[in-house]
Amino acid sequence: SKALSLGEQATAILYLLKWLLMCMLVGTLAGSASAFFLVSLDWVTTYRETHTWIIWLLPLGGLLVGLLYHYYGGRANGGNNLLLDEIHRPAKIIPFKMAPLVLFGTLVTHLFGGSAGREGTAVQMGGTLADQLTYVFKLRPRDRKLLIIAGISAGFASLFGTPLAGAVFGLEVFVLGRIRYEAILPSFLAAIIADYTCLAWGVGHTQYGIPIVPHLSALGIGYTLLAGAIFGLAGMIFAKATHFFTRLFKEQVTFPPLRPLFGGAVVATVVWLMGTTKYIGLGIPTILGAFDNQLPWYDAIVKIILTAFTLGAGFKGGEVTPLFYTGATLGNALSTAIPLPLALLAGMGFVAVFSGATNTPLTCTIMAIELFGADSAEYMALACVTAYLFSGHSGIYGSQIIGSPKH
Amino acid sequence: SKALSLGEQATAILYLLKWLLMCMLVGTLAGSASAFFLVSLDWVTTYRETHTWIIWLLPLGGLLVGLLYHYYGGRANGGNNLLLDEIHRPAKIIPFKMAPLVLFGTLVTHLFGGSAGREGTAVQMGGTLADQLTYVFKLRPRDRKLLIIAGISAGFASLFGTPLAGAVFGLEVFVLGRIRYEAILPSFLAAIIADYTCLAWGVGHTQYGIPIVPHLSALGIGYTLLAGAIFGLAGMIFAKATHFFTRLFKEQVTFPPLRPLFGGAVVATVVWLMGTTKYIGLGIPTILGAFDNQLPWYDAIVKIILTAFTLGAGFKGGEVTPLFYTGATLGNALSTAIPLPLALLAGMGFVAVFSGATNTPLTCTIMAIELFGADSAEYMALACVTAYLFSGHSGIYGSQIIGSPKH
Repeated sequence: SKALSLGEQATAILYLLKWLLMCMLVGTLAGSASAFFLVSLDWVTTYRETHTWIIWLLPLGGLLVGLLYHYYGGRANGGNNLLLDEIHRPAKIIPFKMAPLVLFGTLVTHLFGGSAGREGTAVQMGGTLADQLTYVFKLRPRDRKLLIIAGISAGFASLFGTPLAGAVFGLEVFVLGRIRYEAILPSFLAAIIADYTCLAWGVGHTQYGIPIVPHLSALGIGYTLLAGAIFGLAGMIFAKATHFFTRLFKEQVTFPPLRPLFGGAVVATVVWLMGTTKYIGLGIPTILGAFDNQLPWYDAIVKIILTAFTLGAGFKGGEVTPLFYTGATLGNALSTAIPLPLALLAGMGFVAVFSGATNTPLTCTIMAIELFGADSAEYMALACVTAYLFSGHSGIYGSQIIGSPKH
Repeated sequence: SKALSLGEQATAILYLLKWLLMCMLVGTLAGSASAFFLVSLDWVTTYRETHTWIIWLLPLGGLLVGLLYHYYGGRANGGNNLLLDEIHRPAKIIPFKMAPLVLFGTLVTHLFGGSAGREGTAVQMGGTLADQLTYVFKLRPRDRKLLIIAGISAGFASLFGTPLAGAVFGLEVFVLGRIRYEAILPSFLAAIIADYTCLAWGVGHTQYGIPIVPHLSALGIGYTLLAGAIFGLAGMIFAKATHFFTRLFKEQVTFPPLRPLFGGAVVATVVWLMGTTKYIGLGIPTILGAFDNQLPWYDAIVKIILTAFTLGAGFKGGEVTPLFYTGATLGNALSTAIPLPLALLAGMGFVAVFSGATNTPLTCTIMAIELFGADSAEYMALACVTAYLFSGHSGIYGSQIIGSPKH
């Protein structure tokens, strides 16, 4: 009912204090985990780039991680989808081991040169650490759900240095086409505190810039819709390619630990044949380059295939940074056909392919504002919403449920 | 089901083209209506401020509008709530007369010195004009719903020059605690085109600035939550005061057209007794002043009472600009107790009281970014979310339904 009373304000105060305490814990834990992870990731990436022979060890690294997950992982094999499942149907606390396992697995991927992301790791560490508080505070299922959402928000926010996008990501990711506000305060609090914590450890984030943003025109709106549709298709192809290789490996290699062994051998050989490491790891230098210079038109395609193959083989990490890579290089390539500035198209692709593949258009619009500033916000919003519309009803997260059809 | 096919992309293309066409019409109509309205509003405000004797005619102006609505208004008397009702239960096309009636009624309110806003007018014009396309294109009820949402977004966006906040407002306002993405493309397209149209007519918007934004600290988060809770209570009091005076007038004055006659007489007398016009009309100079200088502590209280009384008496306009006024002056007053910069607190109040009174925390966060830039976004988000939490489950829109409880 719509009755209002001072009792409701008292409830709000208790709710605020309770979640302030819990989000301080979640935010500090997830932000510290992200800080440690970012520093380690930087270290392994630098080591690999200065000792490229190490890429030949990718099959062995994959086997090691595969064996660990197979004999010791248990429910942690579910990864991001385990988090989403526990939000939808809270059943059993996420095992703590998921955090160190995914951290170790991701560092192995990047040390030995798999093509993968990192947000899956931060999100799984955040969600897992948050859910351990369920023991400590003996929480009810409803609170547990909010806690996991807050942990996801905190992990995402502190990994990319985008607190508001992180907050909205936690709210937006588990149902397609809908946001419910149950977790709105926990998500924002945990995300902002986690971002603050990561920065307090002295760990910064990559900076992107879009120097020229033309005033929006009628023609500009048309071009943005066209680009957004293409970015949405790219996001869909990325998701389908990942599912395809995952299925292929499952069908062809029965014993799971052997999948990353074979997959790693193929990736290492392909890298040796291509003679470049620009398509493996996170690919940050190429992403930054996409905002500055014209790149080869096929960069996005190579990155999609290598990432889908790496993740399909069972390597750990995530999809988001490769989605940024795919989008930024695809936007860069589109600038030869679409008369908008190169950096603007790269930025639009960066967020819009992500929007299409994960079905999170508001997260991506807000992330664009946090990364590129408010000047290009209208382009970014139109591109992210159009990409969302064109990417079909399945994305990279199999456990995302459909709350509202797209069209 | 999660099946994907090229058929789905074809549907998406048709959907995009259909809504591009309709949103061009909605955006152009709503943006032009807002432009005309903003210019007229400026004219009547300047006229009133240079001919303050005209305030004595407020009772007569009120009687005229009251008679018009009583004998000719019909369903248009529903105003914003009629729009929300038609979104929830599409029944009958919004009568075209609602647009000119609310335009005329609002100009009368501001010419003769009532205390009111303007977004109700823009939103009603946008929604009404959009719904007329239902005749033209013979739309089904589902499309009609999206069309009205797009019209609301377009009206809001072009009135305040905040396209993304306008888009999200249309999606967020009709259900408390939930967003569904059915109308996400129409809303963003119509909002961006309407804003573009209004600017193309050469009609600009008030600029606000927050010169100093300190880095967020642990203490800063605490102060922001405290301020947010107070802003939420202010939003709740604003909504309750409006409902209170509306009920009082209904009980005391049976014949509706006499309500603004009596109410106008009281407002005119109060203005004469106070010897200042700073609390009537939109109050833009005071809102701007709240970002610069210390203002009297009671400004917010006087504005709430005068606005609730004016609107309760049946004058037209809206609540949002008075909510901005209430919030900015309340934030200004809080700066004597809370050690955050005056302009930052004024800006937080500006959006957060609005967030509390209308239950639209994402709209208000995005609006803050569009009006004040991205630097203060974390403060703004925390304040808006906390205000939302503390404002209870009823807001200024009686037809908003509860989709998810707040705590």
